[in-house]
Amino acid sequence: MKTKLKELKTRLTEINDLESAAALLDWDQNTYMPPGGAPARARQTATLERLAHEKFTDAGIGKLLDDLRPYEESAPYDSDEASLIRVTRRDYERAIKVPPAFVAEFSDHRSASFQAWAEARPANDFAKVRPYLEKTLDLSRRLANFFPGYEHIADPLIDYADYGMKASTVRATFAELREQLVPIVQAITAQPPADDACLRQTFPEAQQWAFGLEVVKRLGYDFERGRQDKAPHPFTTEFSIGDVRITTRVKENNLGEALFGTMHESGHGMYEQGVRTDLEGTPLAGGTSSGVHESQSRLWENVVGRSRGFWRFFYPRLQDIFPDQLEDVELETFYRAINKVERSLIRTDADEVTYNLHILLRFDFELRLLEGDLTVRDLPDAWRERFSADMGIIPPDDRDGVLQDIHWYAGGIGGAFQGYTLGNILSAQFFEQATQAHPEIESEIEAGKFSTLHNWLKESIYQHGRKYTPSELVERVTGGPLNIEPYIRYLCDKYGELYGL
Amino acid sequence: MKTKLKELKTRLTEINDLESAAALLDWDQNTYMPPGGAPARARQTATLERLAHEKFTDAGIGKLLDDLRPYEESAPYDSDEASLIRVTRRDYERAIKVPPAFVAEFSDHRSASFQAWAEARPANDFAKVRPYLEKTLDLSRRLANFFPGYEHIADPLIDYADYGMKASTVRATFAELREQLVPIVQAITAQPPADDACLRQTFPEAQQWAFGLEVVKRLGYDFERGRQDKAPHPFTTEFSIGDVRITTRVKENNLGEALFGTMHESGHGMYEQGVRTDLEGTPLAGGTSSGVHESQSRLWENVVGRSRGFWRFFYPRLQDIFPDQLEDVELETFYRAINKVERSLIRTDADEVTYNLHILLRFDFELRLLEGDLTVRDLPDAWRERFSADMGIIPPDDRDGVLQDIHWYAGGIGGAFQGYTLGNILSAQFFEQATQAHPEIESEIEAGKFSTLHNWLKESIYQHGRKYTPSELVERVTGGPLNIEPYIRYLCDKYGELYGL
Repeated sequence: MKTKLKELKTRLTEINDLESAAALLDWDQNTYMPPGGAPARARQTATLERLAHEKFTDAGIGKLLDDLRPYEESAPYDSDEASLIRVTRRDYERAIKVPPAFVAEFSDHRSASFQAWAEARPANDFAKVRPYLEKTLDLSRRLANFFPGYEHIADPLIDYADYGMKASTVRATFAELREQLVPIVQAITAQPPADDACLRQTFPEAQQWAFGLEVVKRLGYDFERGRQDKAPHPFTTEFSIGDVRITTRVKENNLGEALFGTMHESGHGMYEQGVRTDLEGTPLAGGTSSGVHESQSRLWENVVGRSRGFWRFFYPRLQDIFPDQLEDVELETFYRAINKVERSLIRTDADEVTYNLHILLRFDFELRLLEGDLTVRDLPDAWRERFSADMGIIPPDDRDGVLQDIHWYAGGIGGAFQGYTLGNILSAQFFEQATQAHPEIESEIEAGKFSTLHNWLKESIYQHGRKYTPSELVERVTGGPLNIEPYIRYLCDKYGELYGL
Repeated sequence: MKTKLKELKTRLTEINDLESAAALLDWDQNTYMPPGGAPARARQTATLERLAHEKFTDAGIGKLLDDLRPYEESAPYDSDEASLIRVTRRDYERAIKVPPAFVAEFSDHRSASFQAWAEARPANDFAKVRPYLEKTLDLSRRLANFFPGYEHIADPLIDYADYGMKASTVRATFAELREQLVPIVQAITAQPPADDACLRQTFPEAQQWAFGLEVVKRLGYDFERGRQDKAPHPFTTEFSIGDVRITTRVKENNLGEALFGTMHESGHGMYEQGVRTDLEGTPLAGGTSSGVHESQSRLWENVVGRSRGFWRFFYPRLQDIFPDQLEDVELETFYRAINKVERSLIRTDADEVTYNLHILLRFDFELRLLEGDLTVRDLPDAWRERFSADMGIIPPDDRDGVLQDIHWYAGGIGGAFQGYTLGNILSAQFFEQATQAHPEIESEIEAGKFSTLHNWLKESIYQHGRKYTPSELVERVTGGPLNIEPYIRYLCDKYGELYGL
């Protein structure tokens, strides 16, 4: 059995090496690659991904997993060995259900659709991408249908990002959230808006960059095992537990862009850096789900990074770096600026209160499109209607409406968006647990100390990698299931105080 | 036949994709990788190289090559098709002769030996690496012996770098060169040395960097299909014909380091960028040999980059960038400084005249070690003795003597050094041809125009990639074999004038 487990690990590490190399090709493409590298790079990435997929779906892996079943059953559920076999089997069974020809067809279509969208969005031309999106919807349905027996057609697609979550439960959670969120948004936006002019002065790039590094280093992102580079669309990627890289973009006329983006990505990065190094090179190394991953980026970006305590420590440092811009701006003015709530068009620019309304809309539309209740043709009108109802503003065009996000155009429909709001909910749930276990965390944050919080997250969440499913992890950490109450409490406390509600 | 050729190409492109990804892993390791990435990176690179080797030595490749023999014989020798089959067969037959277990053993030993050397060199401790070097010698002999029927045991090893060259011919060429070179060196070093103090002021890194980019852009290195990054040991690497990258290192107290290093690497880079794009992804894409590659780096670095005409154009630009340092330094003083000849300890710091003496010593020692005429134990003494005889200075220690170069300690013995001097010889041979065909080249250089020279090199050499062997290429381009006369003429003209000989 030990021999078979060793053989499985050897095979998995080889696959992981191919995947890591593909990730480096991708990182390089988004950071340093000269334009002339593009055609060959697409081919090289496709080759590595295909080889990794071929090796993973090889019948030899299935045989090893079968042979190892008694070993798995005899070992404790959360032992590294049983977990490795269990999680690998789950991935394997998912992978072999999808025929390679379909994988290739979907992959080719995604590239073509992305190209069409990249031209259609600036041209505000939904008609141009409509046939692509219709095919994406068809392919997404076909993908789901490789997993018969689902309760809702979106379930197998949600599984890819947030394993074990179902359309029905997410829908119920989101409905509950919406019910509580809408009055909060209404109450806040009835007040005079906060003034964020202080963030919209000119802040030279080099100093913004240096300050961002200083902040995330103090949060606990490890630069011995990572680095930050510039990228047009920030992301986090990992090539091993010892090499987890973040990216950011800097706007000289918007201080928040790089700062909160950097903290956001560092949250993803600390999660990956915190996985136990014994799990290196196996399917257990990595975050367990899109929602849990997003809980970490949002926890550090928002719950910590937009708190008053955090800025009690960091604001004087920021004023030192930008005296001309901030010397005369009070901490309280700055704090209100970075927490300005407003109804806005673009999801990625939205504040933490209205942000979820953007997600809920997209999630509902994914379900309706998959159900056949909404056609791609009717999507732009449906978007405008729902957006106006939710936000009180009508998108002036499709560019900043239904065309704004890359997800459907370069990916699939179903499972693309729920992770963001699940992450917001979980960020508050986890943070509440952390501060209950260590009430000193809040005062430590005011002193620029983050190790108690970081260590608690590492201990409770990061170290396990993919050993536990999202539900198992939430249960272990919080003693109960996913629950919106802490998040609502967090929003009410914070924004109630800010807006005197 | 067309189908089989297509199948061969498909397989070769897949192998090339793996090799290119391995090259990117290596580039990243030498430029941006955080320290924590090292352990996994070694494993990932090894995996990709192993998979590429497995796929290339697969019997299916051999079968295709056999099946394609009639097709090859019916097509013109220098057609893309015949060349692809011929060069692939040559690589394949070499690859399959070496057992995978031996490849792995040598590879593991090289890593261990490199580690030992990295500690032994700063400690000046030859005894520490001696057993490693003895094993390297043994492995190098065993490698050669997988190719029985050689004339000299070094021949199969020379073949890896400079296909078709033999120890006997290289030895004869080098003996002839030595005979002519030694009196030149003696005559020059009998004169008062040139003053290069002007190069040893403080030159801020950012301006050095910008000037280097400006120079190589004008030479014709294409930044749409390449980029420059910093690396501790500069190198050039390619991930496709559209993505060929150079690296450099900057010393603020030595203006020559980055400047000539950048031009040197750009020569390698322009060669790779100039390969015909139809050859992309095949074994034909790339430089044909170590010597021809080096001829391009040395041609641009030395023949062009250390010429008076070149600096007639660029020196005023350089003075503009560094007015405090160079305003009062005459062009002629600068020209003499960058062409200072002196007997020195370190190969990589040597001027273009004495440089070859460093190589000749190493080449001779490689042959003697392989022949058994010299033991590793006796190597340090032999080095001191020969070095004193050739250079008139005795190395004070092994660190700057037999331990100075990485090649034997991280590679093999045999074939490691001859390419550098072959490159010097060829740089003059090619340049002479270019100026015979286009006498305007010299005056164009003085006007900062390099396109006639660059286009001639592209047309004559670069575009063909590995289609011709080094000897075939030299014959095609110069109408005769490798010949030291143009190089000797070049040195005599230039240094005769400089030192009034």
